[in-house]
Amino acid sequence: MMINISKAVQLLKENDNFIILSHQNPDGDTIGGAFALFFALKKLGKKVKYECENSIPKRFEFLTDGLTCDEFDEGFVVSVDVADEKLLGEYIKTKYNGKIRLAIDHHLSHREFASFTLVENKAAACEIVLNVIEELGVEIDRKIADCLYVGIATDTGCFRYTNTTDNTHFCAAKLIKLGADNGEINRLLFETKTKTYAALEKLALSSLEMHFDGKCALMCVTEKMFNESGSDETECDGISALPRQIEGVLVGVTVREKAENEYKISVRTNAPVDACEICAKLGGGGHVRASGCTVHGTLDEVKEIILCTVKESL
Amino acid sequence: MMINISKAVQLLKENDNFIILSHQNPDGDTIGGAFALFFALKKLGKKVKYECENSIPKRFEFLTDGLTCDEFDEGFVVSVDVADEKLLGEYIKTKYNGKIRLAIDHHLSHREFASFTLVENKAAACEIVLNVIEELGVEIDRKIADCLYVGIATDTGCFRYTNTTDNTHFCAAKLIKLGADNGEINRLLFETKTKTYAALEKLALSSLEMHFDGKCALMCVTEKMFNESGSDETECDGISALPRQIEGVLVGVTVREKAENEYKISVRTNAPVDACEICAKLGGGGHVRASGCTVHGTLDEVKEIILCTVKESL
Repeated sequence: MMINISKAVQLLKENDNFIILSHQNPDGDTIGGAFALFFALKKLGKKVKYECENSIPKRFEFLTDGLTCDEFDEGFVVSVDVADEKLLGEYIKTKYNGKIRLAIDHHLSHREFASFTLVENKAAACEIVLNVIEELGVEIDRKIADCLYVGIATDTGCFRYTNTTDNTHFCAAKLIKLGADNGEINRLLFETKTKTYAALEKLALSSLEMHFDGKCALMCVTEKMFNESGSDETECDGISALPRQIEGVLVGVTVREKAENEYKISVRTNAPVDACEICAKLGGGGHVRASGCTVHGTLDEVKEIILCTVKESL
Repeated sequence: MMINISKAVQLLKENDNFIILSHQNPDGDTIGGAFALFFALKKLGKKVKYECENSIPKRFEFLTDGLTCDEFDEGFVVSVDVADEKLLGEYIKTKYNGKIRLAIDHHLSHREFASFTLVENKAAACEIVLNVIEELGVEIDRKIADCLYVGIATDTGCFRYTNTTDNTHFCAAKLIKLGADNGEINRLLFETKTKTYAALEKLALSSLEMHFDGKCALMCVTEKMFNESGSDETECDGISALPRQIEGVLVGVTVREKAENEYKISVRTNAPVDACEICAKLGGGGHVRASGCTVHGTLDEVKEIILCTVKESL
């Protein structure tokens, strides 16, 4: 059943023993929104637990300070930023199957799985959670403000992406006024490259090739580069974004060595090229602007294969 | 004479034939603020001219649409985002020596040169210009909103830098609500690298050196790199941000060749190091986290000089 903020607030006020869930492979928005709600409900004297299929990534660990879970068995289960039950992860999904009471989410593609669903078309789930907490009458302290700011900033690429609205900035203004340490958070999340990442980036950029009249940029990340830089594949997300950033590039390709004669290909496109279409031809898939696939062969063979496939889409 | 917004607004209302000036090597804030004021004064039926020592960089050309200068001789001269008369550039400085009536600026290090000076400690001069235009009673249209958004977004690294305050976000929210095309502007300014910039970045990164136990990262941009990449100094803003991004770095230094034995140094710091203090010792200045100076000598001599000065601050 779809509900509005007032109804969600009423449910939170009337109940106790909350179990708050994030989606698997948690990002800043699902963590920030869940934690903010956690701290807000604690301030109302409620008992609260937090659960997630995976552990909190290192870069968000600074938000976990003071996050002590209460002990109880049954509870009122709330998911934050979960667009589909499947995205909870296998363990959590099975554990709470049919038991999720309230889903707070900002994906218009949301597939209902909770008894009550609060979905609004916002850049970040944290924009909705902010309104929920305000209407709960909880005073937003620095810790809560930090959590919500993290969600809003990460889901908008620090206010760069086209999903950023006036409301996004208005929420950020409010949170900074309430004490969110935006400068330090941005530095940690967006301005800091690990030394190993910086070294890998330098090596990867030196492999950059332009093809098809500058419409395709291709970069390689080899095992040798990982070894030389001390980096690993967990740091490759940022790398994959680089080729597409070059002016005039419609298809940015990153070829990453996974094992001998096995390469993971990441394809990022600008309109009108469909990344998913390219990768689907090679047995992969994903989104329209960001997709991936795995190709076998030597590096030269793999480059040849992906370039041929890209050519068909240009 | 230091004045407040009301007095500045009164001066703008009482006068006509405005000549609006940006600083040399104009950035988004000086251009956005000057253009916004230009369009606002036109809306009040005033005659307006715009002048700058250098031409408008390509990436800001989309703001010049409709910027038709009126013809007149003497006028009421207003500078926007100019912290020091010297920064107008030699030609403009000489031309308007002693004739600048109003300076609108956000640098606390502002050195008074105008009859009337409006300085406020804001992230961008455009935050002040927004308030001026509001108090002028001019309706802010899309074009003006775009100009002001560009200034605010560029001077804060798209809301990432520590200078970003609640007021910065509040202004952005207001401007987006008024029609600023933040998504497209961000894509143009922050998500796109020209081919020449990408080539320059690759070359510059190969010169990266770490000093003082990883606390200082230094990068060089030489004439040879400009030639090889086809880039020029108008594209160096992004480059200067790179050294500080490396984990553990407190001082990021970029040394850029200006002429034979003349180097422009850009210093970006993380807390607690004061970039302005470092550059002031070498005759330059700027902000706490981003400052600049010019040093003469061979590249090796210049590197030695800046590294010694950095060392004192570490």
